Amino acid sequence: MAGGGGGGGGDELRLLGFWGSPFVLRARLALSFKGLSYEYVEEDLTHKSELLLRSNPVHSKVPVLIHNGKPICETQIIVQYLDEVYGASNGPSLLPVDPYDRAMARFWAAYIDDKLLSSLMMMSRGKTEEEKAEGRKRSSAAVETLERAVKECSKGKPFFGGDSVGYVDVVLGGFIPWVNLIDRLTGSRQFDVGKAPLLAAWLQRFGSLHAAKVVMPDMERLVELSEMSQA
Amino acid sequence: MAGGGGGGGGDELRLLGFWGSPFVLRARLALSFKGLSYEYVEEDLTHKSELLLRSNPVHSKVPVLIHNGKPICETQIIVQYLDEVYGASNGPSLLPVDPYDRAMARFWAAYIDDKLLSSLMMMSRGKTEEEKAEGRKRSSAAVETLERAVKECSKGKPFFGGDSVGYVDVVLGGFIPWVNLIDRLTGSRQFDVGKAPLLAAWLQRFGSLHAAKVVMPDMERLVELSEMSQA
Repeated sequence: MAGGGGGGGGDELRLLGFWGSPFVLRARLALSFKGLSYEYVEEDLTHKSELLLRSNPVHSKVPVLIHNGKPICETQIIVQYLDEVYGASNGPSLLPVDPYDRAMARFWAAYIDDKLLSSLMMMSRGKTEEEKAEGRKRSSAAVETLERAVKECSKGKPFFGGDSVGYVDVVLGGFIPWVNLIDRLTGSRQFDVGKAPLLAAWLQRFGSLHAAKVVMPDMERLVELSEMSQA
Repeated sequence: MAGGGGGGGGDELRLLGFWGSPFVLRARLALSFKGLSYEYVEEDLTHKSELLLRSNPVHSKVPVLIHNGKPICETQIIVQYLDEVYGASNGPSLLPVDPYDRAMARFWAAYIDDKLLSSLMMMSRGKTEEEKAEGRKRSSAAVETLERAVKECSKGKPFFGGDSVGYVDVVLGGFIPWVNLIDRLTGSRQFDVGKAPLLAAWLQRFGSLHAAKVVMPDMERLVELSEMSQA
């Protein structure tokens, strides 16, 4: 069992996950910020459980949220679902109320999954030095673009969501341990304070929140996992 | 100018598009089914307008919806935005009311963009015969999976959205002309009535709706466009 108080009164929430997945972390961050109690079920991805295969027959992937027996798949869809079901009654609303601000939040969330993720993957997993260099170039461009996103979404407030953590915070927050891992392995700094001061400050601010810290994976274990998957 | 009656009372809607884009068609389908009046601005993608570059500085792509001067980018985000702003006051609500049904609709919409699109692209644009054969295999698997989606979402009713057109109908509907094009060019049938009877019936049903027909591109022009892009 994990998560804080609150909860939806008799609701049963289970999350099928893998500790080393940024997409699972995102769902855990959403659950944590909304203060929801849930059962966390760790999956062995080399021997996926019958429950996982039955709950996500299309992709057979984690995370899967099971709410009163009904499965919800795909990380961003899970986060939106939690926000819609639990509204403002549990923690802050993640999606903004205004439809235009909501469209912007969805836009930047899609950008993070599309451009930032692919460039970080290329950078850390590229097969040749050329590929890694291209990944660094793209990652740097994505960070520069995201620096603009902080400005546009936060409007001078501490989070993408404004005064409290919102959808884009959770979506980007899921990548923090991997951004830190890449920094450590490459001796570089992705969210460089010189080039992306707002993003660098956000990284520190978000990472130091209690609701984030309690679900973040251990860095030493992540280093080991990274070495194993490169072997 | 295009679109029917209704409209959001003094609202100004402009859509920057390209006639041969399935993603633009999706936005036009949403506008059409919601009965919204809008100005359609055709873009020359070899010489993108200043307005497009300014409205979508991140991706420089169509479609872009401009609502009272504010740009919204990315096809699925535009459709959700229109649905949220115009609710049930203009045409049917596209997203279901129930959060679980909404999560399911988002899941299948993501599946269509991910699996169906990539397999159709591979099939029609593959560089080798092997690649095209792999595309056919994947497309066939995607269609089989989508046949299940029709059953799950429509619950025996005519559309994914139930009695009226919904989000998944619009998202998949945007691909109809390209599915028909591939059928014509390959002499095959993607949504085969033997293998996917519900999907085949849906294709006919959706394609014959007035609100769909008025925005569908001309097939002969599509054939020409396809020949030009293969040349």
